[in-house]
Amino acid sequence: MPSNYRSFRKSVPWLILFLETVFIILFYFLFPHYNDFITNISYTDFQDVNIMVIFGFGFFLAFLKRYSFSSTGFNLLIIVLGVQCSILMEGLLFPKETKERDPKIITMAAVSMTAVAISSGAVLGKTNPLQLIVMTVVEIIIFHVSRWINKQFLQIQDNISMKHVHLFGAYFGLAVSSRFSEPSPRSEKNASTPKSDLLSMLGTLFLWVFWPSFNSVLADRDKTKAIYNTYFALAVSAVTAFTLSVLTTKDGKFRMTHVHSAALAGGVTVCYTAESIDYPWIAMILGLLASVITILGSFCLQRCLNPALKIHDASGVHFTFGLPGLLGAVAQVVLSVIKKWTVSPSLGYMVMIYISDFCLTISVALITGFITGLILNFKLLKIIPVSQYFEDQFYWEFPHLAVGF
Amino acid sequence: MPSNYRSFRKSVPWLILFLETVFIILFYFLFPHYNDFITNISYTDFQDVNIMVIFGFGFFLAFLKRYSFSSTGFNLLIIVLGVQCSILMEGLLFPKETKERDPKIITMAAVSMTAVAISSGAVLGKTNPLQLIVMTVVEIIIFHVSRWINKQFLQIQDNISMKHVHLFGAYFGLAVSSRFSEPSPRSEKNASTPKSDLLSMLGTLFLWVFWPSFNSVLADRDKTKAIYNTYFALAVSAVTAFTLSVLTTKDGKFRMTHVHSAALAGGVTVCYTAESIDYPWIAMILGLLASVITILGSFCLQRCLNPALKIHDASGVHFTFGLPGLLGAVAQVVLSVIKKWTVSPSLGYMVMIYISDFCLTISVALITGFITGLILNFKLLKIIPVSQYFEDQFYWEFPHLAVGF
Amino acid sequence: MPSNYRSFRKSVPWLILFLETVFIILFYFLFPHYNDFITNISYTDFQDVNIMVIFGFGFFLAFLKRYSFSSTGFNLLIIVLGVQCSILMEGLLFPKETKERDPKIITMAAVSMTAVAISSGAVLGKTNPLQLIVMTVVEIIIFHVSRWINKQFLQIQDNISMKHVHLFGAYFGLAVSSRFSEPSPRSEKNASTPKSDLLSMLGTLFLWVFWPSFNSVLADRDKTKAIYNTYFALAVSAVTAFTLSVLTTKDGKFRMTHVHSAALAGGVTVCYTAESIDYPWIAMILGLLASVITILGSFCLQRCLNPALKIHDASGVHFTFGLPGLLGAVAQVVLSVIKKWTVSPSLGYMVMIYISDFCLTISVALITGFITGLILNFKLLKIIPVSQYFEDQFYWEFPHLAVGF
Repeated sequence: MPSNYRSFRKSVPWLILFLETVFIILFYFLFPHYNDFITNISYTDFQDVNIMVIFGFGFFLAFLKRYSFSSTGFNLLIIVLGVQCSILMEGLLFPKETKERDPKIITMAAVSMTAVAISSGAVLGKTNPLQLIVMTVVEIIIFHVSRWINKQFLQIQDNISMKHVHLFGAYFGLAVSSRFSEPSPRSEKNASTPKSDLLSMLGTLFLWVFWPSFNSVLADRDKTKAIYNTYFALAVSAVTAFTLSVLTTKDGKFRMTHVHSAALAGGVTVCYTAESIDYPWIAMILGLLASVITILGSFCLQRCLNPALKIHDASGVHFTFGLPGLLGAVAQVVLSVIKKWTVSPSLGYMVMIYISDFCLTISVALITGFITGLILNFKLLKIIPVSQYFEDQFYWEFPHLAVGF
Repeated sequence: MPSNYRSFRKSVPWLILFLETVFIILFYFLFPHYNDFITNISYTDFQDVNIMVIFGFGFFLAFLKRYSFSSTGFNLLIIVLGVQCSILMEGLLFPKETKERDPKIITMAAVSMTAVAISSGAVLGKTNPLQLIVMTVVEIIIFHVSRWINKQFLQIQDNISMKHVHLFGAYFGLAVSSRFSEPSPRSEKNASTPKSDLLSMLGTLFLWVFWPSFNSVLADRDKTKAIYNTYFALAVSAVTAFTLSVLTTKDGKFRMTHVHSAALAGGVTVCYTAESIDYPWIAMILGLLASVITILGSFCLQRCLNPALKIHDASGVHFTFGLPGLLGAVAQVVLSVIKKWTVSPSLGYMVMIYISDFCLTISVALITGFITGLILNFKLLKIIPVSQYFEDQFYWEFPHLAVGF
Repeated sequence: MPSNYRSFRKSVPWLILFLETVFIILFYFLFPHYNDFITNISYTDFQDVNIMVIFGFGFFLAFLKRYSFSSTGFNLLIIVLGVQCSILMEGLLFPKETKERDPKIITMAAVSMTAVAISSGAVLGKTNPLQLIVMTVVEIIIFHVSRWINKQFLQIQDNISMKHVHLFGAYFGLAVSSRFSEPSPRSEKNASTPKSDLLSMLGTLFLWVFWPSFNSVLADRDKTKAIYNTYFALAVSAVTAFTLSVLTTKDGKFRMTHVHSAALAGGVTVCYTAESIDYPWIAMILGLLASVITILGSFCLQRCLNPALKIHDASGVHFTFGLPGLLGAVAQVVLSVIKKWTVSPSLGYMVMIYISDFCLTISVALITGFITGLILNFKLLKIIPVSQYFEDQFYWEFPHLAVGF
């Protein structure tokens, strides 16, 4: 076993302890007393988002044959670290808002962890815990800075900029992923078994069921409408997933991964417009388009774009969260143009703001993701050999195999 | 591979797309604007029922060795299709009510999907997706028509007639099932493994935990009492399940499938009376009786009735949902007779209405289920050969076995 | 197969039926009408605790290779029996309170089942259902009597004494466990597989996600603060679990069982002080200490204390619930001393009360647990041979192996 392998193990606990100490100290100074930031909390909202990020994503990503311990375990680790970091960043960057909309700060922190969970999906199995932790902290800081920039220069409200969480997570993760070596195409570990696919279905169904909560948390006006629209979009995209899966596979069979990603696409897409769509059929059509773009995307990206760009997108975050997110951002522009065509004189300005908003977010995600990918491959962070990709036993004790203490 | 096998695959996506287009167009005309049918929603209620039908039933039915992909996947497919169909039927048949009790329309649609999930359990592993989709749409339409008849001719309230959902689902499914060939008794696929039984336990526990929500959603007066009664009935039926399982098995061991079905029986039985029982011990006795009828039913039906009627009840819906539902309907009559003995002069009339109500529902379920079973076996719908019953690989890609695209 | 094996099977159903009959009769006399004990219920609170005890603990304990049916099944059995017993004990011992704080009686019964679930973890795989049922009933009765003593003699409020549920469960279970023979060290059954560890992770994540609900149910003043404090403590203890796992294992790898137990330790520890801590960083430090004490405890106890005392703690309840509970009780004393240093003249008295309170609880748990352990090993209850420890097939039908009826 190579020596840098042992040394990685020596450094993980100290990095975690260092971060945790810093977090506790910062909490001491930033949130000296609960009275400063708690008034009341919609606990149900928080809990639903918490279930999604801890449980839903943990099992959604558990589809690799030999990587289910790491998928669920490391997901827990980075979420709990990231939530603390996210609360601190909110406290630092949006101090006034923190006091105004108290109840939401911890819920918003949980929502922003979706970005980290998605990014970690893009590099699933290729990063060691050290790299994952660094990526989490860097990504959360940049995500909130990007929101802060959107707020300062484009006057985007806090909860609107939070809706970029899927887009940011996907493109940040893809950019990071482009700096990692591709796994050997003959590797058998980079595959699922029927059992692990079923575990992933469990996670998917959890995400699916709680997605309306997620979108309604981000809505600030009409939460009920957000729930309805999200549910209709999710329903139609799940239906369409089955259709397109049959049409695009060789034998005309269903493919489980299509169902996993396309069933969720509708929820990602209507995230931007959930509270403003007034007609159920529009949400349904968006759900249908989201599913189409996801499955066609999975077909094209895996065949053409990814090999060309040398990106290995381990769990398909590009077509599961990236493309539907883009579609949602475009739909937001189109729908607001249609809606306010005769009403608003400042339509052009508003459209420009929307477009700048998501272009800026994606650019920041891609550039900083690329840089983060470079940093993660510094020798200091002890990259793992390609042969050890997708392998639980590299990180976890398996007393089942050989009895150690 | 037979040619009609390929052609079935060609027709599935087009049927789904056709239905989805029809649904979107109907939504356009029936629910032109959210203002017409949303005021407010008890999101918690909706979410609990949603978790039950998507997650609970999906895994409850995942007990077959080689059919877990189909159990969870097709369950998702038919639920999301059926919910849309159900909302449309409510809009068509109960237009006034739709506007009066706005918040509930989507929750009621989710509740009515229980019928479809139960029926799909009766034919589990024996239908292809084409047949399942046709069955779902036909069943949902007939279920709402049956409710409409009950309303028009017997003046039964909407939410009372919704309580027949278990009875209707079970007998419709059994009638459909009687038109399908029985699986070969030597077939090894029609069995569970310890792992799949555990998955099914996961689904069962989910159904068990959320059942009080289900019954309280259907209660219109005293939701808290409905929750208590349901919980007590479920608790006693779970306890009794263990007792009777030991008494009825050969070695005096527990049987997992007994626990699965009998633990839920109490919830099904008190569905009718959850809001009107005033004494906890009555709910407890009903739970005990429900469990007894379920386990004795499983003993008698599988030995005597099913072979005689040539019904193969793949997941035991007859004794899990049918018999406890019947018991509940009878209990409703008995309890209301006792309660209003001295009070109401119109007791005889009321009893007659109750009895007509559930007799009508069961008759409609049996007759239309039988006809649906005949339709599903038309050559057009490409029935699958008995040798391919209970087999995931007939429908799903298994890249785990051989690397395809 | 030995004869006492058959006879155990003959007695299980009759014991259950006898208990159930007694419960129904007692309900008839104690809770004659819902009006006597229902006014309103926070259903969400009840449901969250219900999910934790039925689902969370059921799967948390499902880590043994060949004992997953029993872990989830018997957990359901003892919880539903115990809840009824617990409601009756509350009605008997705290009659006035029952009427005053109506809505909580069923929620409190579910909370108190945590003690039983924890104790059953300590003897996991070593007790037959007969013993488990006796233990459940005895433990629940003693737990409420112990609360009653605390109330009568120390004027401890009901919901404060309920917070001892983890401590009581852990030490009662350990004392019972000390009376059972140790399993053979060469036994292969007393181990987990990667699949069963993952199942246990599922249960752990459920407990983790719903723990803030649990602590907020027990808080009577500031529920929001209880949620925040619990979440922060859980987050830090999960983070610390990973750190210490790497530091204490031989190869510097993560150990799954460390994550399982230490991630929950924070929630157990802040149970006592969740509503009174005013500063997030204190909750975080408590979470960190809880995790440290858990993992060091697991290291020391398994190496030194348990072999010396001949205790076999099957699922590590001592360090998962016992030690963090102790830490929490101590923290409560320390924090209230610091807080009221200048305020209260009766500080010394209050500290003495707190200390007597938890010393009394632990003593009662240990002594009665020891006696219960002796009773459980009476020949009447037919102890199982050590060779049949941790073996599902001793209790459950496995039609998967040989086709029986």
